[in-house]
Amino acid sequence: MRLLLSNDDGIHAPGLAALHEALRDMAEVHIVAPEYERSAVGHAITIYDPLKTKKVYKDGAFFGYAVDGTPADCVKLALGALLPEPPDFVISGINLGPNAGISVLYSGTVSAATEGTILGIPSMAISLATFKDPVWDTAKRVAREMVARLQSDGLPQETLLNVNVPNIPLDQLQGTRITRMGRSRYIETFERRTDPRGRAYYWMDGEMALLEDPVDTDLQALEDGYVSLTPLGFDLTRHAALPHFEKWRDAVHPDSLDEKDQVAS
Amino acid sequence: MRLLLSNDDGIHAPGLAALHEALRDMAEVHIVAPEYERSAVGHAITIYDPLKTKKVYKDGAFFGYAVDGTPADCVKLALGALLPEPPDFVISGINLGPNAGISVLYSGTVSAATEGTILGIPSMAISLATFKDPVWDTAKRVAREMVARLQSDGLPQETLLNVNVPNIPLDQLQGTRITRMGRSRYIETFERRTDPRGRAYYWMDGEMALLEDPVDTDLQALEDGYVSLTPLGFDLTRHAALPHFEKWRDAVHPDSLDEKDQVAS
Repeated sequence: MRLLLSNDDGIHAPGLAALHEALRDMAEVHIVAPEYERSAVGHAITIYDPLKTKKVYKDGAFFGYAVDGTPADCVKLALGALLPEPPDFVISGINLGPNAGISVLYSGTVSAATEGTILGIPSMAISLATFKDPVWDTAKRVAREMVARLQSDGLPQETLLNVNVPNIPLDQLQGTRITRMGRSRYIETFERRTDPRGRAYYWMDGEMALLEDPVDTDLQALEDGYVSLTPLGFDLTRHAALPHFEKWRDAVHPDSLDEKDQVAS
Repeated sequence: MRLLLSNDDGIHAPGLAALHEALRDMAEVHIVAPEYERSAVGHAITIYDPLKTKKVYKDGAFFGYAVDGTPADCVKLALGALLPEPPDFVISGINLGPNAGISVLYSGTVSAATEGTILGIPSMAISLATFKDPVWDTAKRVAREMVARLQSDGLPQETLLNVNVPNIPLDQLQGTRITRMGRSRYIETFERRTDPRGRAYYWMDGEMALLEDPVDTDLQALEDGYVSLTPLGFDLTRHAALPHFEKWRDAVHPDSLDEKDQVAS
């Protein structure tokens, strides 16, 4: 088995080291990760600049490639140029902090797995639901179990697996839930300040707003001490909304436009 | 009617000026847009730096706020701090270049509309399907029609409207299609070079790979000369894949873990 590991916390992040430790005896492991932290970059890619790479060594041995780009860049570059052969799986993480609820949209960790999936490689993102005192051993054990499952069961077409692990000791885990992305999100507040030259700037802060999030959501699973497994896709079409627009079909049509006023320019 | 306009090509982009011209006699228009081009940023937000703002004037009159952040940042900041009252709609564009198929994932233009939707404001992204010789008048006319429809019909819950306009004169438009996001994507190639200090860097290039994209997709609508209207959401859950994972429920459970080997650390 050949694995590509990436993340959004950067190549020197302890979560990536933990992932490497967890998986290195199971597979041939390749690492291509951002040179520095690229959290909350969403599915950004670098299109107007070249991507620079640097070999990173740990304890005297080659550890992986650092790329001055986003997580999605790293996966594209790994598959397109750096890896001699395509990996069997792309594994992104272990992220310090949950990627659940609306946060999934902003997540660079998930974005690396999305990019792997777009490029045809079954992919998984894994995050530990804490910002301090991480219990890496729990997440490492879950990572091993999940990679074993990937190997035995595979993933459905165009589907990536988003794994969130509660930050508790292994023997306190309640089990595993198959979940959907919750709707809770941060409510931002902005604090306005003025710089010494009189220019305004704003610090964003916020708190989690728990919206309707039933038991089958990722956020609730974490809350209840369960490992959360969410299958994610990348077709953003809201199919249920298609009927609403049926009558918009005549919105712009040469025949109807002739009768109406022209745009002022 | 009160509108918030944003984009990802930056506050000085001709597409934003065109959008402003198209809509200013229909509504009270507010503009909050990135200070410079932020294409392909996906749904990135700025979390570790403050957001700086600058008032931009055009022809001696206040035009809008430039923000040194992403399109999603602009919408968050507009709603959270800059606008005296919430807008009725967020309109993002007019983007120079289509936002259709897989490109939607990387699009800053769409991301501004997604952020508006997350924050509870019905939102629309509009893009002109060309990178050169834009026929702004066609896109302006479509923008007016669509905003009128938004006003009369609204949008379904948690749904944004992604509008793509073919770059042809108004009288050559074939009509309007209600579409889903196509699957076509760029196939990237990387050209490796070495800088004067011997460090490797890579230029990404690519060409569009047309995958299975039937008549009801955004890309095919553009190809056929139709305005494409795609309802998009932000729930990335792949519901159809949930059954695949049913048997993974026992993947990590304290009882089962006891019997197995521990993670080497």
